[in-house]
Amino acid sequence: MAHQDNPGADLEAVLARIDANHDSALERLSDWLRIPSISTDSAYAADCRKAGEWLVEDLRGLGFEAGLRETPGHPVVLAHPEKAPTGDRPHVLFYGHYDVQPVDPLELWETPPFEPRIAEGPDGRKRIVARGAADDKGQVMTFIEACRAWKEVTGSLPIDISILVEGAEEDGSKHLPEFVEANREELTTDLVLVCDTGMWDPQTPAITVGLRGLVYCEVFLRAADRDLHSGMFGGAARNPIHVLSRIIADLHDEDGRVTLDGFYDGVEEPPEDIKAQWRELGLGAEEFLGPIGLAEPAGEKGRMVIEMIQSRPTCDANGIIGGYTGEGTKTVIASEARCKVSFRLVGEQDPEAVGRAFEEHVRRRVPADCSVEIIAHKGSRAIALPYDMPAVASARSALEDEWGRSPVVIGMGGSIPIVGDFKRTLGRDSLLVGFGLDDDRVHSPNEKYDLVSFHKGTRSWARILAALAAAGK
Amino acid sequence: MAHQDNPGADLEAVLARIDANHDSALERLSDWLRIPSISTDSAYAADCRKAGEWLVEDLRGLGFEAGLRETPGHPVVLAHPEKAPTGDRPHVLFYGHYDVQPVDPLELWETPPFEPRIAEGPDGRKRIVARGAADDKGQVMTFIEACRAWKEVTGSLPIDISILVEGAEEDGSKHLPEFVEANREELTTDLVLVCDTGMWDPQTPAITVGLRGLVYCEVFLRAADRDLHSGMFGGAARNPIHVLSRIIADLHDEDGRVTLDGFYDGVEEPPEDIKAQWRELGLGAEEFLGPIGLAEPAGEKGRMVIEMIQSRPTCDANGIIGGYTGEGTKTVIASEARCKVSFRLVGEQDPEAVGRAFEEHVRRRVPADCSVEIIAHKGSRAIALPYDMPAVASARSALEDEWGRSPVVIGMGGSIPIVGDFKRTLGRDSLLVGFGLDDDRVHSPNEKYDLVSFHKGTRSWARILAALAAAGK
Repeated sequence: MAHQDNPGADLEAVLARIDANHDSALERLSDWLRIPSISTDSAYAADCRKAGEWLVEDLRGLGFEAGLRETPGHPVVLAHPEKAPTGDRPHVLFYGHYDVQPVDPLELWETPPFEPRIAEGPDGRKRIVARGAADDKGQVMTFIEACRAWKEVTGSLPIDISILVEGAEEDGSKHLPEFVEANREELTTDLVLVCDTGMWDPQTPAITVGLRGLVYCEVFLRAADRDLHSGMFGGAARNPIHVLSRIIADLHDEDGRVTLDGFYDGVEEPPEDIKAQWRELGLGAEEFLGPIGLAEPAGEKGRMVIEMIQSRPTCDANGIIGGYTGEGTKTVIASEARCKVSFRLVGEQDPEAVGRAFEEHVRRRVPADCSVEIIAHKGSRAIALPYDMPAVASARSALEDEWGRSPVVIGMGGSIPIVGDFKRTLGRDSLLVGFGLDDDRVHSPNEKYDLVSFHKGTRSWARILAALAAAGK
Repeated sequence: MAHQDNPGADLEAVLARIDANHDSALERLSDWLRIPSISTDSAYAADCRKAGEWLVEDLRGLGFEAGLRETPGHPVVLAHPEKAPTGDRPHVLFYGHYDVQPVDPLELWETPPFEPRIAEGPDGRKRIVARGAADDKGQVMTFIEACRAWKEVTGSLPIDISILVEGAEEDGSKHLPEFVEANREELTTDLVLVCDTGMWDPQTPAITVGLRGLVYCEVFLRAADRDLHSGMFGGAARNPIHVLSRIIADLHDEDGRVTLDGFYDGVEEPPEDIKAQWRELGLGAEEFLGPIGLAEPAGEKGRMVIEMIQSRPTCDANGIIGGYTGEGTKTVIASEARCKVSFRLVGEQDPEAVGRAFEEHVRRRVPADCSVEIIAHKGSRAIALPYDMPAVASARSALEDEWGRSPVVIGMGGSIPIVGDFKRTLGRDSLLVGFGLDDDRVHSPNEKYDLVSFHKGTRSWARILAALAAAGK
């Protein structure tokens, strides 16, 4: 309990404890990773709950008042300080998610996705390989391990901390907005902390202040009422794969722009000084695309790569299937084909308007005798966080202390829709700090989390907590 | 052995025997259908052999010298008359295939595909439901059962019959041309009989005198060296589903014409009198497409439906897959997408030229940093058989006797490439008579064969054998 009033003085001891805890921290993370908490596949519902229970147990061990809270989907892990905050020091809400992406194609995993292992990468860096290692269990544990070290060294935490870890982020955080709305008072703190973003590069930390929004639609296109023999019906019968291909091909024009009516409404150019800063960063196609085996930027002509992935909205077909896809040949005309298409939004783009424009785009291309069903998953707007909030300054100095270089303050291509709800419903901004790397294979086979990210990420959070404590209310 | 020299006189007894054998014939067919002889999937290689052995056994019971003959793929069933033909009566080679199409999507089968059952259709007609019921086991058995009845009634067959039933028709008859070439002398008869085609409608038999050719290609398109998170890479990284969609969408122009360079080289207009006959048949979109739930012909603008399916070449994507196709959402950019595309050829179209033009079409649309692999399966030219060969006249009168109406002499949309080899290698024409119906769901779930097709098809062959015997050499 020494130094309770002077967290800064304890920091060195806390950092040393984190170093000493490294192996046991990896074991804890591995335990959590062994639970296949795939939220989008109902077959794994029990595992999702188990992953939540695992975290509740761990948080109780750290002295949190923790439990599972039910939603119409997977339960939410919610934890509060043992002693009710008195309001004389900062109170933060940490957000993360315990659910993970599906694992297919399973055959591309070098080892089973839920049997975590430590491996050495081609760059000689060690990493932990498993589904969810980076997204988001490993990232969540950087924060939890920082709390553990503080607790072990000082007997308490330097600020008041509540924790919300949901189980449906990979399924669009379907029920979380209503949960936040229904528990507004309980969840309102001074600031939200989120660990689900990335570094600028393996040496340079980042604070994320912009998030792209998301629109995700599934299209089911049906033509004939059965599969047909192309020898008998080919030439006369409509082929739904052709119709779907046309729908997807027409989503972009020759310059890489998305063709939906009004798609770019609400998209603004970044200020010239930001663009100049981006130009200086010199993120060329070679640096960004080279490591993944590509060379030609696929986005809008005349844009920098950093614009394509940060300030410009995008459209991607995430999946397509129709007809015969097995070994060998089959001369079939499918009765149905389907695809999944998503849009990343920026600025003031309206997800509902984009969804409607997509539906219009699809329906215009569906022949009268075919039927189409479009499922629009819950969309989210892009979010811009204030560059100048005090927490950014605290985090900036903490990260600089840990990594030896100033963090880059960036926008980000991905979406964490709930951050918008925290702002709208709770009136609170979020501080987004994460330690993912571009090659983490998030959402891909052989997902990994760099052990330096895990270790220095934990140390970073320990420092950020100290910095927030020092800054006070 | 009575009436050995006057087959016509035995015909009524043979037909009565076929009627009496109906139930046992269905049992034999069911036994054969229970063997899952899927030729394109190597997991079923042993079953293919078993299906061949089953037929060998049955043919030996009918007095044929029958056996399996090896090829580099599945074995061929080959049977010859017990007594070597003396040349004083016609000798025919019957061709069919014992292999069947894959069964997916399995979940759309109302009952397991290899557990044949008798069912009543919505039209009140009885049918046997199983994979291969129509294509081609049921059709093959119409011929075998006709032979059986002749044999049972007269102790022999009215003409000399050899039988070749292969096991790889659904895989493009890969090795059969070399087998025919290598056994030219043994296989050369006066005429080839084939039962793998359809009726004009359930009341009207048909003799097929034209077959479309086939080009079948598979395209494997690879972009990044791993699946990517669309939030991180979307906008900058190439999406192979987009590239593939463009490739497929661009295969047809707005008028439904295939866009490949030189695709229509060698395609000729049918003579005006044939077109006039087709117009009189009055095959409207409603008649042809209505029963399969469609209404708008998808082929070239300004063409009759019968042209689209008979005299015009076509192009269909038979399958496509890429990215995430499971339940729910996954914001992935796939590293690979692939599709299967086939072309039906007519007239003098050159399969190799079409294959080359397709490859050119694909490669022109693949960005420099993506890779593409194109697998071209063995192609076949279209085949036109002589309308005026004597066997057509024999079959015409036999079919008219059985069905009470004159058969329609037609072209056909499908491909039976080996018929071209019989012509080129053996110098023999084929008589194509079959009893399939448009709604047989050939290559689809719940494939069926109409019991009237099976019964009257068997009777038709009994009559055709008599007619060929009567016509003599």
